Amino acid sequence: MPFTTFMPQALDEARAAAARGEVPVGAVIVSAHGEILATAGNETREGHDPTAHAEILAIRRACSGIRSERLTNCTLWVTLEPCPMCAAAIAHARIARLYYGASDPKSGGIETGPRLYDHPNLHHKPEIITGIEEKECRKILKDFFQLKRFQRDTD
Amino acid sequence: MPFTTFMPQALDEARAAAARGEVPVGAVIVSAHGEILATAGNETREGHDPTAHAEILAIRRACSGIRSERLTNCTLWVTLEPCPMCAAAIAHARIARLYYGASDPKSGGIETGPRLYDHPNLHHKPEIITGIEEKECRKILKDFFQLKRFQRDTD
Repeated sequence: MPFTTFMPQALDEARAAAARGEVPVGAVIVSAHGEILATAGNETREGHDPTAHAEILAIRRACSGIRSERLTNCTLWVTLEPCPMCAAAIAHARIARLYYGASDPKSGGIETGPRLYDHPNLHHKPEIITGIEEKECRKILKDFFQLKRFQRDTD
Repeated sequence: MPFTTFMPQALDEARAAAARGEVPVGAVIVSAHGEILATAGNETREGHDPTAHAEILAIRRACSGIRSERLTNCTLWVTLEPCPMCAAAIAHARIARLYYGASDPKSGGIETGPRLYDHPNLHHKPEIITGIEEKECRKILKDFFQLKRFQRDTD
């Protein structure tokens, strides 16, 4: 089967988040049959919800849709390396494979800092594929924070 | 000011969770003025939501109530040591103080495993007070899993 990427859809969610003034991260959850179960972008600001990262929202929506607290055999596509909260949620949901774009040395929880999946008390570890459309994933974030700084400095 | 404990309310939430067949963990969020902003017990099973731990639900409810993604100066009381997902969410919400009852060597994220607050890319670390009504917090969990095993073995 040829490799099908869902990063374009995750990037669309990231761009939509930026347009709403949210940190531009987007996520997509895909079933074993290649069906999109959920998409989400960050909603922490508008939702007044510090847990409303793209990954958490996508997991909650996908689980609600299939009426299960497990997303076994599903894949999660996200533009940025998940933070420790999201990395642990991915383990709780038993997601099989995690594809992400840009690394996050400042707030990531997988390659850096607590390196969550290196610990046995995370009772599940997804297969991890990194660097998918990394340049574009990183550019959206860089542009967003540059614009924020410009707006703040010219305020 | 005398020490006011909110662990009895957290224990009530844990008992209510057990009665619903959920892993009995309960949480309470209290404002700087001693007002209860939110209470929650685990809802992962009934909510088909692997992120619906007591702490996450309490944070979401408290933030929604005050229309802010920050719970600065608030305290969180929870019967069990938070897992890495919840420990990171507590940091995201900027909760000032975390009181918990029982330690969780198997799935905890603070004293054990990834020891989340030991890493600088968690950009906030609450003050932590452990062992509050530890015996009762632990007993509720032990009784719940003993009953589950008994039900399974006699099924």
